Amino acid sequence: MRVDIDFDKSGADSYRVFIDELDRLSLDTKVAIITNPTVAKLHLQSFVESLHVERYDVITVPDGEQYKNMETLESILNQCFALRLDRKSVLIALGGGVIGDMTGFAASIYQRGIDFIQVPTTLLAQVDASVGGKTGVNNSYGKNLIGSFWQPRAVYCETRFLKTLPKREFSAGVAEIIKMAVTFDADFFDYLERNDLHVEENLRYAVARCVKIKAEVVAKDERESGVRAVLNYGHTFGHVIENETKYSHYLHGEAVAIGMVMANTLAVQLGSLSKEEAGRIVKLLQSYDLPTSYQIPSVTDFYDTFFLDKKSAKNQITFILPKGIGDFSIRKDISFESVARALGEFAC
Amino acid sequence: MRVDIDFDKSGADSYRVFIDELDRLSLDTKVAIITNPTVAKLHLQSFVESLHVERYDVITVPDGEQYKNMETLESILNQCFALRLDRKSVLIALGGGVIGDMTGFAASIYQRGIDFIQVPTTLLAQVDASVGGKTGVNNSYGKNLIGSFWQPRAVYCETRFLKTLPKREFSAGVAEIIKMAVTFDADFFDYLERNDLHVEENLRYAVARCVKIKAEVVAKDERESGVRAVLNYGHTFGHVIENETKYSHYLHGEAVAIGMVMANTLAVQLGSLSKEEAGRIVKLLQSYDLPTSYQIPSVTDFYDTFFLDKKSAKNQITFILPKGIGDFSIRKDISFESVARALGEFAC
Repeated sequence: MRVDIDFDKSGADSYRVFIDELDRLSLDTKVAIITNPTVAKLHLQSFVESLHVERYDVITVPDGEQYKNMETLESILNQCFALRLDRKSVLIALGGGVIGDMTGFAASIYQRGIDFIQVPTTLLAQVDASVGGKTGVNNSYGKNLIGSFWQPRAVYCETRFLKTLPKREFSAGVAEIIKMAVTFDADFFDYLERNDLHVEENLRYAVARCVKIKAEVVAKDERESGVRAVLNYGHTFGHVIENETKYSHYLHGEAVAIGMVMANTLAVQLGSLSKEEAGRIVKLLQSYDLPTSYQIPSVTDFYDTFFLDKKSAKNQITFILPKGIGDFSIRKDISFESVARALGEFAC
Repeated sequence: MRVDIDFDKSGADSYRVFIDELDRLSLDTKVAIITNPTVAKLHLQSFVESLHVERYDVITVPDGEQYKNMETLESILNQCFALRLDRKSVLIALGGGVIGDMTGFAASIYQRGIDFIQVPTTLLAQVDASVGGKTGVNNSYGKNLIGSFWQPRAVYCETRFLKTLPKREFSAGVAEIIKMAVTFDADFFDYLERNDLHVEENLRYAVARCVKIKAEVVAKDERESGVRAVLNYGHTFGHVIENETKYSHYLHGEAVAIGMVMANTLAVQLGSLSKEEAGRIVKLLQSYDLPTSYQIPSVTDFYDTFFLDKKSAKNQITFILPKGIGDFSIRKDISFESVARALGEFAC
């Protein structure tokens, strides 16, 4: 299965997402695979057996979001130089979002930019992070604050890699799938209500559907100035939850699940979503054991934390609210009072 | 005086170079000026007096190529975060090529890319580095090996800033001007033979002419896959000279001056430049006290060092040779023997 990502501007950055077609990956340049020990143990052998290359090197970085920083980035770059990779060389990101984001960032600044290929091994990365060209690392001021927009040359999603995912991580990926359905595709939401994603062919369909939706969105808005913001549905609230819980209690997708419920509460209050629709979304999230509640210690602290987000340019918060199921509205005009009222339902 | 830099693809990256029109610079966003103590002492006061902004902050980095590294880059980024610059904020590079390259790189990766403005204060930066969007830092493997292509929002060249330049640095800038004339513009070369660039209006004309030439070149070839390589005339050899002398003996423009003479020797040998034309170029370089000779310790070592250059993808060396004065040829087919013969004329 394939999805084309076409950037309407020039075509120069266009590429293709292959789903369960890894055997098509063939390269005649120097190749370095960036991965971590956990992924390497599970999938490296099987991956390189599918790969048609003359030779490759493997660069391993420590596993975990806490290593997604400038230090690890520099270590990747230095190993690329030690391997004498040149401007025609290709980096392959074999791993989840952290590996993908760092590999993409390294590729974007190695000798002012070389090609890279995404081979996402988590559901979250397959349906979200691997398409769109956002790369980056964290620093002490927050997540993904240093990075670039750099499109991969191709993305290879293998659903077989998802079989080894821990249950919680699988569900965290499903949260992003549900996010796509709620904001962009009512039919897909119905499909998700009726079909269990633990079944392989359903999963393949859902991955392809999400990639297609995301492809259309980022093709319209590569640099995130318009519709791409809709992908942040649930994230505006989710980021604050992650921040308040020091990125250690919830997986990203779990925080997003709660964030969607918060956005829905605001949407119901403002009349853009019915209580019944909000209930359907909660039910679908819960069917994958995703969290849907959170005790806010302080509503004003929670609100203030919105402004740490890099997306809050000029101190304005953009809220993405569902408009029924399958559509969205982008709102920049919501008062503190409205937001505080919605957050109040989650206060201790 | 103004020159428009139009990228034919989309126009999204297009911008304008203003020559002696700094009073037009007006911004209504957060602004951080990146500079070094030497430039700040000479020009910061006068610069900010011309600037129409509500407020600005100044980030100072140490003066010198040896500080053009990831450590300084991170320090710039951290100060930007401490100042709470957002995605609409603008960085201004006030200084020479080092400041411009690092500021552009920082801007390209700060929150995945913000705007920056070049205010080059050296002749070299005005005629070369400030146009084209190359950014980067050095590392232990070489110069500019980590970086990005990131176009400034605008460039402001003030010839008044050049009055304080040390004589050697001024001449090093003239070397790049001569480079442009030899490869692209015979009339401009004639002009340079007849007009002294120490005269302000001649200098203004030459800066504008170079910016225009470079603008046309990079507009055709933003990512350096074709004609942009011609800007490396003199640089392929010059980089090796800089490497052999540990970047401490020659200014970049001085190494390029010698590099042009070496390229010319090869061109004369291959019949694409006459001895008389080569002589005119040497004479013009020497009239600005630029070096035109160099004792090569070992021709084979010199040749091997070509391959450390990031432009030598797949171990192929591209030579830019003048084809008469005012035209060029891009040659990838020159044998080791030919190059060694030309280099032999410079051997100890």
